[in-house]
This record gives sequence, structure tokens and C-alpha cells, in this order.
Amino acid sequence: MSIELDTGLPSTRQIQTIIREEKEVEMKLSTGDLLTGKVRWQDPHCICIMDHYDQPTIVWRQSIVFVKPKM
Amino acid sequence: MSIELDTGLPSTRQIQTIIREEKEVEMKLSTGDLLTGKVRWQDPHCICIMDHYDQPTIVWRQSIVFVKPKM
Amino acid sequence: MSIELDTGLPSTRQIQTIIREEKEVEMKLSTGDLLTGKVRWQDPHCICIMDHYDQPTIVWRQSIVFVKPKM
Amino acid sequence: MSIELDTGLPSTRQIQTIIREEKEVEMKLSTGDLLTGKVRWQDPHCICIMDHYDQPTIVWRQSIVFVKPKM
Amino acid sequence: MSIELDTGLPSTRQIQTIIREEKEVEMKLSTGDLLTGKVRWQDPHCICIMDHYDQPTIVWRQSIVFVKPKM
Amino acid sequence: MSIELDTGLPSTRQIQTIIREEKEVEMKLSTGDLLTGKVRWQDPHCICIMDHYDQPTIVWRQSIVFVKPKM
Repeated sequence: MSIELDTGLPSTRQIQTIIREEKEVEMKLSTGDLLTGKVRWQDPHCICIMDHYDQPTIVWRQSIVFVKPKM
Repeated sequence: MSIELDTGLPSTRQIQTIIREEKEVEMKLSTGDLLTGKVRWQDPHCICIMDHYDQPTIVWRQSIVFVKPKM
Repeated sequence: MSIELDTGLPSTRQIQTIIREEKEVEMKLSTGDLLTGKVRWQDPHCICIMDHYDQPTIVWRQSIVFVKPKM
Repeated sequence: MSIELDTGLPSTRQIQTIIREEKEVEMKLSTGDLLTGKVRWQDPHCICIMDHYDQPTIVWRQSIVFVKPKM
Repeated sequence: MSIELDTGLPSTRQIQTIIREEKEVEMKLSTGDLLTGKVRWQDPHCICIMDHYDQPTIVWRQSIVFVKPKM
Repeated sequence: MSIELDTGLPSTRQIQTIIREEKEVEMKLSTGDLLTGKVRWQDPHCICIMDHYDQPTIVWRQSIVFVKPKM
């Protein structure tokens, strides 16, 4: 599973921008849960989001429904 | 994950047409959510849809159930 | 993603027959939705179904549970 | 997608036996639906089940939870 | 689909141990169903579990959430 | 299926750290279940979590929604 993120794809780049600019996002999951926080890192399997208490949640990509900037 | 969209496929081309013609669509998600807006871009992992406030939502393809033009 | 439909498979051929004969089908989706209409085209990612108002719905294969002829 | 069924696998062989012996089965789907009938054919993407009225239902493998003989 | 089980992986080996020792397990499925019984065989697509009446249920791996020894 | 974990990925390494430091975690599953315990091992298909009674649960990766440290 030596797969890599394709940094040329819009989705990869936009998540990278969200990480770099420390934008707050809403992340909807397949269970219906809605996580709010800042994205810390992404890899081919997971995306890590930090909540307001700076606690990390490692989210598996297969369960991500959408990500959008928090208004 | 250097995969590319196959622009020869009907599904890829129809989404490209929807993007170019700025058609408003309904997108049903695996959670039952129904998003409404204009498709901005697609890549092999995600499709981005803009709502009426021009806010982007990055939707993961695995959670897309259907897309249809809004009547 | 330059994958092609294997037209030798029973599932591909039966969907092609449904398209050619313009049979009305019921398509059950992972959300529990049941679409009714005629299948217009299929590709490796999606199947397009037209409703009674001739409006297309592009359905992602991962969300299809079953297809059966409408009785 | 020129993939083939591996007829050496227990799951493939048991479904083949169910087809040949025309055993009645229960098939549970991801939506919670329970189909009852006889399996007519399988291919790498789908399994076709015939109900008591000899109507076919083409079921996508990704939505199959389990198959068991009807008691 | 000539894929094989990697018998060097912990998950494959632990299921093999459960089969050999005829341990009773609980298997949770994506539909929320909880099956109880003994695992008879596994292959790359399915795991077969026998209930208390020695009836087999062929479970597709994609729908397995967890397996644990029955206490 | 001779796939291996890519130990260079953040997600793989963080789970390895959680295993080594015997941190207690919450693991949310696609069924909505929330497991609590210590991660014992991971392989490309599964992650094993031990509950407070030291009973193992083998969780399939496809059903993992998120993992986070228990506060």
C-alpha cells in the first residue's frame, strides 16, 4: 500500500490549502456525524481534524461524505 | 494515486457539460442529504458543488448516490 | 481510470438489453430510494435512468443495490 | 474490467452449487431488504435472483450482506 | 480475481485459529445484524458462519464490521 | 492480497504510536457503534481493539469511521 497522494488533483490541493491556512471546516461523515475543526494532515487513507480542545480525530477517507468551510 | 478522469466516459463528459453550462443540480448523498447548487470541478476522488451563497462543498465520490438537473 | 465495461459479462449484457428494449425498471439505491424509469446508458462508474418526464438521473454504481424489471 | 470469477474459491463454488441445485436462498442486502428466491447466475459484479413469480432481480455484489439457504 | 488470502497477516491467522479451535464468535454486520456461531471457512470475498442449527450463512467481507469471541 | 502497511504514512504511524503507548481510544464504526479500549495490532485489513475485560474485537477497516484518544 505504498500509495501516495496526487498533489496535482484539485481535491488534494484544496485540502492542503485548508491545512496551511488553518481554516475551520465542517466534515460530514457516513454515520451522519458532523465534525468541526481544523484539518491537521491528510494521507491516502485518513484525514486528521483537530477540535476546539486541540484533540485529534483520525477520520478514514471512506467515511467522509463532504468537507466545507465553516461559515 | 496518479489516476486520471477518463474523459471519454459518458459520466465524466456529462459532469463536464454540467460544469461548463453552469446547470443547477441536485446531488443525493449516502447520508440522505440532498445538496443543491452548481458543480465547479471534478477529479477522480471528489466533486465540488457551490451553493447559493457561493460556498464550496467538496463531496467525496464514494458518497454520491445520484446527480440530476434541478427542475 | 481508463477502464471499460466487459461486454461479455451477464450483468453488462442484461443492462444493455434493458437499454435497447427500453424496458421500464425499478432501481433500488443504498439510501433506500427506489427510482423508476428507463435506462439510457451505462459506463464503468454510472448508470443513467430517465424518469417519466424524460429527466435524466446519473446514478453512481456503488450506490446501486438492485435493478429489476417493473411489473 | 475484464475480471473473472475465481472458480477455485469456496464462495464462488458454493454459489455455483446453489445455482445448479436450484436451492432457495435468503439474500440480505445493505438496505436491510431480504430477497428470497433461486440464484440464476453470478458474475464478478452481480448475482441474479429469481423470485416466486420467476421475475429476475440483478443484485450488485457490493450491497450483498449475506446469503443463506432458506429453511 | 485470482486473489489469495495472505496467511501472514494477523487478521487472516486469527480467523484461521477461530476456525480450527471452533470458537463461537459474534459477527456484527453493516446492517446492524449480529450473527452468532462458528466460523467454517474464509476466502478473499466471504466468511462462512454456522449457526446453532448447523445452517451456513455466507457473509460478504465488505459488510463485516467486527468479529469477537462470544463470552 | 500480499499488501503491506505503509509505515511511512501518518495514519499508520499514529496507530502504531497508539499501540506502543497503550493509549485508550474511542473507535466509531459505520453502524454507529462506539468501541472503547486499547489498540493491540493493525494489519492492512483490520485493527484489533481490546476492551476493559481484555477481550479482543477484530474490526474491519472498511467499517472504521474515526479513531480518537479517549479524554
